[in-house]
Amino acid sequence: MRLDIAYEGTDFNGWARQPGQRTVQGELEKALETVLGGYGPPPRLVVAGRTDAGVHATGQVAHVDLTEAQVGALMRQRPPRSRDLAPGALAIRLNGIAGLKSDVVIARAGFAPEGFDARFSAAWRRYAYRIADAAASRDPLLRRHTVWYPAELDVDRMDSAARELVGLHDWAAYCRPRDGATTIRELQEFFWVREPDGVLVAHLRADAFCHSMVRALVGATVAVGERKLDPGRVVVLRDEAVRTNEFTVMPAAGLTLVGVGYPPDPELGARAELTRAKREPGLQ
Amino acid sequence: MRLDIAYEGTDFNGWARQPGQRTVQGELEKALETVLGGYGPPPRLVVAGRTDAGVHATGQVAHVDLTEAQVGALMRQRPPRSRDLAPGALAIRLNGIAGLKSDVVIARAGFAPEGFDARFSAAWRRYAYRIADAAASRDPLLRRHTVWYPAELDVDRMDSAARELVGLHDWAAYCRPRDGATTIRELQEFFWVREPDGVLVAHLRADAFCHSMVRALVGATVAVGERKLDPGRVVVLRDEAVRTNEFTVMPAAGLTLVGVGYPPDPELGARAELTRAKREPGLQ
Repeated sequence: MRLDIAYEGTDFNGWARQPGQRTVQGELEKALETVLGGYGPPPRLVVAGRTDAGVHATGQVAHVDLTEAQVGALMRQRPPRSRDLAPGALAIRLNGIAGLKSDVVIARAGFAPEGFDARFSAAWRRYAYRIADAAASRDPLLRRHTVWYPAELDVDRMDSAARELVGLHDWAAYCRPRDGATTIRELQEFFWVREPDGVLVAHLRADAFCHSMVRALVGATVAVGERKLDPGRVVVLRDEAVRTNEFTVMPAAGLTLVGVGYPPDPELGARAELTRAKREPGLQ
Repeated sequence: MRLDIAYEGTDFNGWARQPGQRTVQGELEKALETVLGGYGPPPRLVVAGRTDAGVHATGQVAHVDLTEAQVGALMRQRPPRSRDLAPGALAIRLNGIAGLKSDVVIARAGFAPEGFDARFSAAWRRYAYRIADAAASRDPLLRRHTVWYPAELDVDRMDSAARELVGLHDWAAYCRPRDGATTIRELQEFFWVREPDGVLVAHLRADAFCHSMVRALVGATVAVGERKLDPGRVVVLRDEAVRTNEFTVMPAAGLTLVGVGYPPDPELGARAELTRAKREPGLQ
């Protein structure tokens, strides 16, 4: 089954299940187990983008493998007041368990196409990062997914620096290292815009991001926007491929996983095999 | 001094100061007192729209009367890193006290023009009400100022019913009664739109609203949108001018005070006198 998921990360300790912590995976797996009514083994979700504590998602994707008995249990359910058959009903039941006021929402649930793997079939991940700088209006209604920055930032400098970074490169300077994990990634898009309400938004897309890469890229271009770093310097740092203290990694609260892209259905299985062969645990 | 204020109402027990409760007025008056450094009497804010517990504001307006000694104390202050002179500095200092992550923000602070009274000079108040119905995508990032409604609503029916209600009328059917308070108000605008993300938004403007009037008007048109009430019925109920149980008052969480309008500066004093003469305590 494929699940499309949105959550506000503020009150979650990240995506990944951890004993004694409230996490998105933990809450959803508990809800799934309730819906499946004790049939089969505990459901385990596989996710496209394993977000850190405090990071949000509007377009997260996960899958769960179910046994025949579990699918049967699901298909016999039809929630009250719904004309949907299962598995459409699954989203309604899960949201019912999570509660209408919850900070996690199942936008869609359905049988996944043959060969689909939420993590390994993914062709790209897209993130957005939101900052209200000194020049922007600071709307308290948006503060939970927008970071407030005390200085005024030059969006044109930030945008130019961001666009210079795009391409297939080694991102060691922008990654928190993980044992045996490659830092070579294709950054497919990176640009900054100032929205009509004054909020600065970075848009980033890559085949996959290594750990803390989005927040480091945002931090480097913010330093450019505050004139603490020359625009060309972000490329030099990238090509030196070592960690630096010339910029800071930005806080989690401004970051949202916006979407995940998959190839056409017939290519899903091949794509997953290819990714598994050349990648290692730890990509997000 | 005039203050323009935004807040997320979720964690406030409304605008009005109450002993032992966290309220917007209470927090701001405490911050003002700190900034004034003990000069003169405790500052008291007068507000354009006294919002209930859980109601938000992006365009709230208040004023505070200061003594000459207090103005002097303010004018001697200039915050670090700011080129602003007081009173521009006041907003920065107040926001500093409230904290960058706070749920209340002073958007602007400045000397008010002659005759200005935040409450009695106001010509109109504008509110918005946001609902994610079953047809809308429920974005958890917006859930704190958007009410989730379990049924699908017909926005065209709601919009037609809303527009029929506009005008100068007795709103007793839509007001929670208050001793000696008139229920005659001019509803200047009321319409519904479905935004691109699917969220339903009601826009309302009136010279002033009586207590719970916005949420009652929203509730009546929601009943129309769910086909539990005929569109013409909302006008009949209004003209019967008695309280009814044919619709429910909607929850506070969806409601935001968006803005307050004032006449041109030379008319501020006259407008305030006129309002004071014909109105009574309790208008918002």
